[in-house]
Amino acid sequence: MHTQTLTRSSPPTPREFGVGARITLAVMSSDYIRILLGALAETDATGLDIETDDVSTWIAGDEQRITEYIAALIAAASRGGEHVTASVLFSRGCPGEISCELPPGGTTLVSEVPSVPLTGVTASAQWALYPLDDHGSPEREADHMRDIYEAIDRAKANGSYVRSDHYVTRLSGDVATILETVAGGWVLAGRTVSHVTTHVTISVNSPSAGAVR
Amino acid sequence: MHTQTLTRSSPPTPREFGVGARITLAVMSSDYIRILLGALAETDATGLDIETDDVSTWIAGDEQRITEYIAALIAAASRGGEHVTASVLFSRGCPGEISCELPPGGTTLVSEVPSVPLTGVTASAQWALYPLDDHGSPEREADHMRDIYEAIDRAKANGSYVRSDHYVTRLSGDVATILETVAGGWVLAGRTVSHVTTHVTISVNSPSAGAVR
Repeated sequence: MHTQTLTRSSPPTPREFGVGARITLAVMSSDYIRILLGALAETDATGLDIETDDVSTWIAGDEQRITEYIAALIAAASRGGEHVTASVLFSRGCPGEISCELPPGGTTLVSEVPSVPLTGVTASAQWALYPLDDHGSPEREADHMRDIYEAIDRAKANGSYVRSDHYVTRLSGDVATILETVAGGWVLAGRTVSHVTTHVTISVNSPSAGAVR
Repeated sequence: MHTQTLTRSSPPTPREFGVGARITLAVMSSDYIRILLGALAETDATGLDIETDDVSTWIAGDEQRITEYIAALIAAASRGGEHVTASVLFSRGCPGEISCELPPGGTTLVSEVPSVPLTGVTASAQWALYPLDDHGSPEREADHMRDIYEAIDRAKANGSYVRSDHYVTRLSGDVATILETVAGGWVLAGRTVSHVTTHVTISVNSPSAGAVR
């Protein structure tokens, strides 16, 4: 049964594999509704399914388009200079809800690491990466620690790494570079682990930026 | 070595065990600085260590005090009627940063489920619970699925459960009840799993509340 699922001729699509994200975008301005609706209207959503509720906006599609979209949306909401925070959850490998029912075609999905054009908007961020399902195998556990270290090495190489802190890794730089780091770690860990989530909180134009490192 | 660490006479304290939280609180008002500083000033921080940076506020102490504090802080920021969002991360069992170095005295910490007085402020929320380290044991994996189901049963019993959704469980009700559900799941999963994190995004006074379920 298990080997048979690996022999399906085509791998699952990102949608079948439960690839998607949620973003909660907050604008610290009494004009926030106009700013948020403007940012949503001007951000290219080609190839994505998008649904907004009263807590977050859900985005489904492939990793590259989801990551580009989130970077562009945060940048669009921030360009007027207001203080903006964004909490983003990326998930893959759990297309069901509580129990993760994977489609036929394999237990992992190998995807390219997203590449995002610079936005010109700089931010600070706190990031956590969770490889959730290693099927109880010590080899897989070693793989996922290797993936986490690789993700952090990539963050150092692209300049977004600041330091580790309680429960999170602190990042800074262009919103695009921060999201490349976050989505890159998520995609890389997903090469050996089925169910991977990652959470990042991004802060732009904070009045306390500069006062802290 | 492993059994010896289990024979230490006293269990680790919550601080030694890395019990803590981060909250990013956003107020959708041009008066947000006054509202946030007012909420921080009026919320009782007895027994807690609190540090604010440009992305979030870090809170360390025991589970009961952390949970009470977060509920009171969100309620205080929301009472003026502004739209408020809060993204909260609770963590336990990873007192180091990337690698989780547990103190001597055991690999789990059994704590009481927090109980929080009602705030009178109602909210919607999206919640994810991550039992991260089951030491590669199938029995522990079964334990942690049992813990997640128990956490959801508790959310149904206290009335905060709405439904499962992509990657998250939707909750609603008094901010205190939502946080009891979230912190309760975190503490319960922590009885069998060392490293447990949970993330919740809470939305109060949303102009789109009522338009969606």
